[in-house]
Amino acid sequence: MKKIFAALALSLLPLPLVAAAPPSPVERMRDEALAGDKVAWDIVEDLTTEVGPRLAGTEAEARARQWAVKRLKALGFHNVHIEDATMATWVRGAETAEIVAPFPQRLVLTALGGSGATAADGLTADVVGFDSIDALRAAPADAVRGKIVFVGHAMQPNQDGSGYGYYGAVRRSAPAVGAQKGAVAVVIRSLGTDYHRNPHTGLTTWGGVTPIPAAALSIPDAENLQRMLKRAQRVTMHLTLTPRFLGDTPTGNVVADVPGTDPAAGMILVGGHLDSWDLGTGAIDDASGVAIVTAAAKRILDGPRPRRTIRVIWFGDEETGGAGSRAYFAAHRQDNVVFVGESDFGADRVWKFVPGFAEANKPLADRVAAALFPLGINLGRGEVEAGADLGAWVRAGAAGADLAQDGTRYFDYHHTPDDTLDKVDPARLRQNVAAWLAMLRLVADAPEPIAKLPPRPERRP
Amino acid sequence: MKKIFAALALSLLPLPLVAAAPPSPVERMRDEALAGDKVAWDIVEDLTTEVGPRLAGTEAEARARQWAVKRLKALGFHNVHIEDATMATWVRGAETAEIVAPFPQRLVLTALGGSGATAADGLTADVVGFDSIDALRAAPADAVRGKIVFVGHAMQPNQDGSGYGYYGAVRRSAPAVGAQKGAVAVVIRSLGTDYHRNPHTGLTTWGGVTPIPAAALSIPDAENLQRMLKRAQRVTMHLTLTPRFLGDTPTGNVVADVPGTDPAAGMILVGGHLDSWDLGTGAIDDASGVAIVTAAAKRILDGPRPRRTIRVIWFGDEETGGAGSRAYFAAHRQDNVVFVGESDFGADRVWKFVPGFAEANKPLADRVAAALFPLGINLGRGEVEAGADLGAWVRAGAAGADLAQDGTRYFDYHHTPDDTLDKVDPARLRQNVAAWLAMLRLVADAPEPIAKLPPRPERRP
Repeated sequence: MKKIFAALALSLLPLPLVAAAPPSPVERMRDEALAGDKVAWDIVEDLTTEVGPRLAGTEAEARARQWAVKRLKALGFHNVHIEDATMATWVRGAETAEIVAPFPQRLVLTALGGSGATAADGLTADVVGFDSIDALRAAPADAVRGKIVFVGHAMQPNQDGSGYGYYGAVRRSAPAVGAQKGAVAVVIRSLGTDYHRNPHTGLTTWGGVTPIPAAALSIPDAENLQRMLKRAQRVTMHLTLTPRFLGDTPTGNVVADVPGTDPAAGMILVGGHLDSWDLGTGAIDDASGVAIVTAAAKRILDGPRPRRTIRVIWFGDEETGGAGSRAYFAAHRQDNVVFVGESDFGADRVWKFVPGFAEANKPLADRVAAALFPLGINLGRGEVEAGADLGAWVRAGAAGADLAQDGTRYFDYHHTPDDTLDKVDPARLRQNVAAWLAMLRLVADAPEPIAKLPPRPERRP
Repeated sequence: MKKIFAALALSLLPLPLVAAAPPSPVERMRDEALAGDKVAWDIVEDLTTEVGPRLAGTEAEARARQWAVKRLKALGFHNVHIEDATMATWVRGAETAEIVAPFPQRLVLTALGGSGATAADGLTADVVGFDSIDALRAAPADAVRGKIVFVGHAMQPNQDGSGYGYYGAVRRSAPAVGAQKGAVAVVIRSLGTDYHRNPHTGLTTWGGVTPIPAAALSIPDAENLQRMLKRAQRVTMHLTLTPRFLGDTPTGNVVADVPGTDPAAGMILVGGHLDSWDLGTGAIDDASGVAIVTAAAKRILDGPRPRRTIRVIWFGDEETGGAGSRAYFAAHRQDNVVFVGESDFGADRVWKFVPGFAEANKPLADRVAAALFPLGINLGRGEVEAGADLGAWVRAGAAGADLAQDGTRYFDYHHTPDDTLDKVDPARLRQNVAAWLAMLRLVADAPEPIAKLPPRPERRP
């Protein structure tokens, strides 16, 4: 997998057009990053090897913060520090499931974040299956009470990752819906697009309902269970899940600056998240994201000093509730933040640039787009999201942009044990760094003011 | 995955050549199987759903035998029965590993068949790494004593599955080599070619050495451990493996016949194995194999009665020692077996026909080759193996043939939790049935005698 993009990456270098102008400084920096960046790869390799999984609120996330401070200082960033926060922490326990009758066999599953627990020796109940969360919502409580609810869905891979919003409701909400109808547990088909026996975890939310055991079957196991439900009147499962809520524990954000020359011009925030789910080593989610924005900022740090300060933030607790980004926004909302961008959709190539500037800044957006086209990046339209960690700033009126990554294979690995270093392609990672560098250089140095936009409300999925 | 072969399968149907002869009965039967066989798919789907994993010597394998008798009787085979055998049985227990220092994180592994056990609370020791079994063999005992030995290798995917023999020594022999040098445990890089966190189990052999704990890391975990060993003087692992030897328990073979018209012409044995490793549902290893030969034999059962009896055998205990095939050979060695063939290399397409006939039967081999060419099957040369279950008959002098399946992706799934129904492509499965049907029809009905060959010794890998 690692080499198949190398030829494409080379082909993205500007062709020697007849009578072409010499490359601008930004173009030259961009192409150097594309050809030779090593900073991003080293962050991903070293963080996944030396820390590995780093579930928010645990000592592993704390070790990751110390690791991040050391690395960001070694890279020469200014003002490197941790900003502490507190979060309600959940940790995984035992997790096993077996079909007891009529087709005894083990099924592979994993608890969803926030799942309640069974007794230590598990529970046994009949399974009732639904093809969608809508079918579960429509079911009478009598059909569900005392049962283990299974919910399937039809998520398919898509380049833009669409489907996670709609089908994601199965993970986020089906357990609470089942609990309200009296289910003893809810198991879902993993929110994913692979065919490996690595279930996908992720947060489920209860909205005040008392948590019940909630887990995701790997997709091969979900399809096996569906076949059983089709051919038997009654399918009985024994389920053991023993996660625990630990109460409040520390989390935090790691901050590092590239100082600008003109504080009055406002600052730029870029980031990703340092925490990861506990099953994999968090290589694509989101060591790659923090590595990409950090490597781009490092190249600016090593070049001419930018007009605007660029702040790099490695957020804590993105996966299990967002305590890190909430704490940062609360502490800094008076800062003059004029532009934000987040990288948190894996390590595949950037294919689309979605600018979110005020109309007055269209010339700046056009300059960024022109610098990105040679990397194979199209100009897109739409509402900028800036991810879970920096979205609050966009909603509050900061300009921003999304550098959309190809998500076709993202949900093969997302939140699974399979989120490991080997899934990251070095050449695609460099293309990300080149794109972020070009965008940050142009925005940080823009001579014109960067205008605010009207605030907008949060859209809840 | 399931649909990508459909177009190819259709393209394998004979082209309407100008002035072509009408298809022979064998060609017509072959093309009907290619276009429409359902028997093989149903066996794979039903066995993996209704029985699932069926480790040799366990009650799951016993359930599988009952399932097989019922299915083979329902298909109309004659003389369906179980031939009992006894085996020494090993079952998996807990299996976990964590790096304790300097980079604490969990690693994913699975015990090798025949592994010894740690204490219930595991053992802790430093890891010493070797890039090959040869490097381990060359190491002084002082470098190994009291350590957990890690052994890597360089297995790559190949169409013919070569590499399993050579690199397979890491799994079969490295634990015994480590034990002899005083290692407290041996963990290997899984014998496999995937990049998923599903470790590959498989039998390890001790040759009289007292078993020690022996396990295989998933390939991403093996590479992570290798990175740790490169960057730290000392890497300490905590390892827990609690498998057990159960002593002697029952296994057995399930036998079913298509009776021939001429007992004096000798009989044909075809088979695969019913048992599977315990991690997956044994879809490609070897539900597909027994399904392919059974579906081919079923089409002969439903057509003109063959000259020679075709016996289909679903062997027990192929994976963990071969008690089933040994028992069958011992009980039947006086039978007049003139031809054998085994399907035990997954569910991908047949790409090569390797005939193993006496020189006098070259015309028969040529007729079979001619019937297989339109399925995209080349004529190969070499020693026929006929697999672990029927190889003894070839070595004893029976004619035989290998219908070699494409093994490029076989070692992505082999002996892992990922050996599940979704890995089987229905169109490729049908191509296998068509090939076996054509071969069996021609060999069973051959008017000439099928000659014996000189016996040859077993080659030990």
